Amino acid sequence: MEKIGQNGKKRGWFITIEGPEGAGKSSCAEVLMNFFNTRNLPVLSTREPGGTPLAEKLRETVKNKPDDGEVIHPETELLLMEAARAQHVREKILPAIERGITVICDRFTDSTTAYQGGGRKMDCQIITGFNNYASGICRPDLTILLDLPPECGFRRVAKRASADAANDRFEAEKMEFHHRVREKFLDIAKSEPERVKVVDASLPQNEVASLVEKIIDEFIR
Amino acid sequence: MEKIGQNGKKRGWFITIEGPEGAGKSSCAEVLMNFFNTRNLPVLSTREPGGTPLAEKLRETVKNKPDDGEVIHPETELLLMEAARAQHVREKILPAIERGITVICDRFTDSTTAYQGGGRKMDCQIITGFNNYASGICRPDLTILLDLPPECGFRRVAKRASADAANDRFEAEKMEFHHRVREKFLDIAKSEPERVKVVDASLPQNEVASLVEKIIDEFIR
Repeated sequence: MEKIGQNGKKRGWFITIEGPEGAGKSSCAEVLMNFFNTRNLPVLSTREPGGTPLAEKLRETVKNKPDDGEVIHPETELLLMEAARAQHVREKILPAIERGITVICDRFTDSTTAYQGGGRKMDCQIITGFNNYASGICRPDLTILLDLPPECGFRRVAKRASADAANDRFEAEKMEFHHRVREKFLDIAKSEPERVKVVDASLPQNEVASLVEKIIDEFIR
Repeated sequence: MEKIGQNGKKRGWFITIEGPEGAGKSSCAEVLMNFFNTRNLPVLSTREPGGTPLAEKLRETVKNKPDDGEVIHPETELLLMEAARAQHVREKILPAIERGITVICDRFTDSTTAYQGGGRKMDCQIITGFNNYASGICRPDLTILLDLPPECGFRRVAKRASADAANDRFEAEKMEFHHRVREKFLDIAKSEPERVKVVDASLPQNEVASLVEKIIDEFIR
């Protein structure tokens, strides 16, 4: 299956990976990269928030607790996420897709809906409006949602715990927050079953990899 | 004239100063500060983008040309301005107003409408939506627009030219950009004559100061 743009040129796919910390998003990205690389199909891997020098700077600002104890307000957080996305999409993702390169992105708009909408209980209609503005014409063709109970994700993250994780404003949230994030991810998957494929990320890593390979194989066919 | 909040408590005024670089916004802020200080009325002065450590960090990001040559896209710029505003309003402006302190702010939402809407020709309806989201219930009670032909502002700015100015993404814009900014500022003033008072900033500094004093005196009465 090929994707052809309005100009008749072949376009790359835009594939996003969603799920909580500890769900195995990086391993999933590797499986997808291998899939495209072994078929000699051009592919690049990126992440949100971040993906360009400016957007990575915003990632640091929004993810870490400020040194001086300044509180980052939810509206600020949402707008910073969207600013980073607007930059990432226009500077990196869209130019690649237009050159026929498939882009694999670790987190995208669904994370904003899940974390700010589900987790922080912000208005999802407003978030969707911001998501659409920031992503412009760039919408995921396929999303792999790595579903995992928060308790399980936390145990995995604890094993790789570092100073970074201790300073992460999202990982520091209470368990109910992460339950709401999971529910919102699953709501999105339910409402867009064609785009969002749910994978049980509590399975052993090699089984998750097989499921992901099956999904991408069927999608590309 | 006093401003009383819903809780029956006295609230501070929110006064904004708008206009191009070189129009004398800092001098205008000083005149206003003196006005309140000499009457023993609590007042604080702040600026946008900026006003809190986080928002000042965003100011640097959005005003300066990135070292590595990365292009800041207009949508990114708009969202960064609004993120800085969301933080500034919630962290500094609203808490002060609620404690009865008058806040004088160098630039606010009208600058976004003028620079991004007028200058960059972005959709003003979208900008108004973002402005309202970022500023929440915090709307200026009075705005002093220092109107000045761009050529005149440029001559003044040139006199204080520095490495900072040379690196400023807005000052580097062409003259037509600044003409569109001025027109948009004047459009806002025309559509909200009760809130926005226009002062001819090409007059000698002491005459501008007298006009500003007259405006604030009539407003407070």
